[in-house]
Amino acid sequence: MKKHNFSAGPCILPQEVFQQASEAVLDFNGTGLSILEISHRSKEFVAVMKEARALALDLLGLSGKGYHAVFLQGGASMEFLRVPYNLMTVNGKAAYLDTGTWASGAIKEAKAFGDTVVVASSKPENYNHIPKSFEIPTDADYFHCTSNNTIYGTQMRQFPETNVPLVCDMSSDIFSRTLDFSKFDLIYAGAQKNMGPAGTTLVVIKEGLLNKTGRSIPNILNYQQHIDKESMYNTPPVFAVYTSLLTLKWLQNLGGIPAIEKVNEAKAALLYNEIDRNPLFKGTAATEDRSKMNATFLLENEAHAALFDNLWKNAGISGLNGHRSVGGYRASMYNALPLESVQVLVDAMKELERIA
Amino acid sequence: MKKHNFSAGPCILPQEVFQQASEAVLDFNGTGLSILEISHRSKEFVAVMKEARALALDLLGLSGKGYHAVFLQGGASMEFLRVPYNLMTVNGKAAYLDTGTWASGAIKEAKAFGDTVVVASSKPENYNHIPKSFEIPTDADYFHCTSNNTIYGTQMRQFPETNVPLVCDMSSDIFSRTLDFSKFDLIYAGAQKNMGPAGTTLVVIKEGLLNKTGRSIPNILNYQQHIDKESMYNTPPVFAVYTSLLTLKWLQNLGGIPAIEKVNEAKAALLYNEIDRNPLFKGTAATEDRSKMNATFLLENEAHAALFDNLWKNAGISGLNGHRSVGGYRASMYNALPLESVQVLVDAMKELERIA
Repeated sequence: MKKHNFSAGPCILPQEVFQQASEAVLDFNGTGLSILEISHRSKEFVAVMKEARALALDLLGLSGKGYHAVFLQGGASMEFLRVPYNLMTVNGKAAYLDTGTWASGAIKEAKAFGDTVVVASSKPENYNHIPKSFEIPTDADYFHCTSNNTIYGTQMRQFPETNVPLVCDMSSDIFSRTLDFSKFDLIYAGAQKNMGPAGTTLVVIKEGLLNKTGRSIPNILNYQQHIDKESMYNTPPVFAVYTSLLTLKWLQNLGGIPAIEKVNEAKAALLYNEIDRNPLFKGTAATEDRSKMNATFLLENEAHAALFDNLWKNAGISGLNGHRSVGGYRASMYNALPLESVQVLVDAMKELERIA
Repeated sequence: MKKHNFSAGPCILPQEVFQQASEAVLDFNGTGLSILEISHRSKEFVAVMKEARALALDLLGLSGKGYHAVFLQGGASMEFLRVPYNLMTVNGKAAYLDTGTWASGAIKEAKAFGDTVVVASSKPENYNHIPKSFEIPTDADYFHCTSNNTIYGTQMRQFPETNVPLVCDMSSDIFSRTLDFSKFDLIYAGAQKNMGPAGTTLVVIKEGLLNKTGRSIPNILNYQQHIDKESMYNTPPVFAVYTSLLTLKWLQNLGGIPAIEKVNEAKAALLYNEIDRNPLFKGTAATEDRSKMNATFLLENEAHAALFDNLWKNAGISGLNGHRSVGGYRASMYNALPLESVQVLVDAMKELERIA
């Protein structure tokens, strides 16, 4: 039986992407070669890389608007480092919003490079909301935020209007909702939520942002190198990029971000309505900041845990256990998770109410 | 028709690995989940990572000898940076042997960290040999070399006896030949030759080597972090690690490095004998330094190029074009390339001699 996969990431991808990727491992587009053994310099893969970069910009509405897209390696955690290396001037200053574990990780790497101002943090409340009143120093080299917090189930609805470059880690909600992406100067996202398998990171960079720090940047960390070499500075993660392209094409065929956003809204509404209605459950995140990607919730009575776990596991659900920082349950509803899977979860919650 | 893939990397992997990897993209070990959608924290994948790390050490004869193995992201080019960050002391010195493009890349990244002494270079001779007479400063923090040079078709047979830690980029010949790997303090290798698909890098580190530099190391670049977190500091490239494990198991089942070394010797002998015998061809690398992984050779008469290209392409060979730095042809004969494929190439060379 195929599972209802609510895993927080790596996560479910479209079933047709699994099928196409599986076939390409045996024979890539009739070349007689596996996607795993083709040269990254072959015209076939160069075309894949080019199309993936262009389609990513296109889906974000950034084609022709002066942005570059590159596919890198190392995960978003590597971008925690590349961002200050490329954007923080010597003796400069950067501003960060601390909304959870990943924001903290980004702040930690930045601190080694210069004055890292945390403009606000919801840590004292175990990151259960997004701080909204804060000031960004006008002399900061950039402002960094995390659009969605997988662990704590919160998501930014508004982004600050600011004169400093806006940098955003969108690892866990990119391609899931319409935003004016042209307000951002740099966006990065690990693939393994809405874009593809773990192993590549998309970075979108506005022209004119780079080469202003006076800092010597190692080649492998230098965004300009990766832009100039069209994501082929060194051997790229061929399979991860190819499978990301398959996923982006699936999204394009669905109708792009506006189309998937409707599905995501429906999934989130279905689950949060049940969390709020069902007296046996409660959400952990502030209502106005609830993530539409990751819903975190608890049982009102821990004594029901064994019964509930049995119910959802028997329904074919996997990956529902909450992160240890929050406990309880976390339902991750990324782009490829069908509405039907959320219905199966809601049915299990209703069934618990009936029999508990 | 399945191709005879002589690509320099990414390159051919065992056919059974393609089959197993393809199946796992649809259903990983009967879990009902694709290998692309399982959590890296799932017990199934934690077991994969653990087994891959242990098997890598085992195949290298380093089990129980005080070494750690980690699987990272970023390619060998990222290790060009991690090595000086982790091993070069503040105001320290490192020694590098310059044997080609990759060695030069490593030197370039190291230079930003301190005194980087190039003990010898074969660049003036277009890297057609391995320099053998050089002195390693006894006060260097480490000595770095590249065991095999894919572009120039050379390979180190001997490694220096030295009191300073020995660091080696073995990206293109790891697991291909017996060596006393315990002489090395740090070995790294991008997966995409003898270990798996592009997207992960194996790093083997001797205990006691780290934490001696007095340098502040970014978390994502800190080897100690990756050792402590058992290669799960951040989301690992799940598919690349899994497919590397499949490839390492294939090698283990064959009889490990000693068994594949015999096959590799036979392939190299077959091809180099033909290059030397056939009056229409000549090798580019110094005979004593010829690589058993990548044979680089030229036509004596360029006018035969169209005819020869036609012959090998019609024989189902792919990936034989030489790198632009050397020209001519490059036959990469990694572990998974069958002897039969080399015979097909040799037959094409003989056929050229007959009809040219």
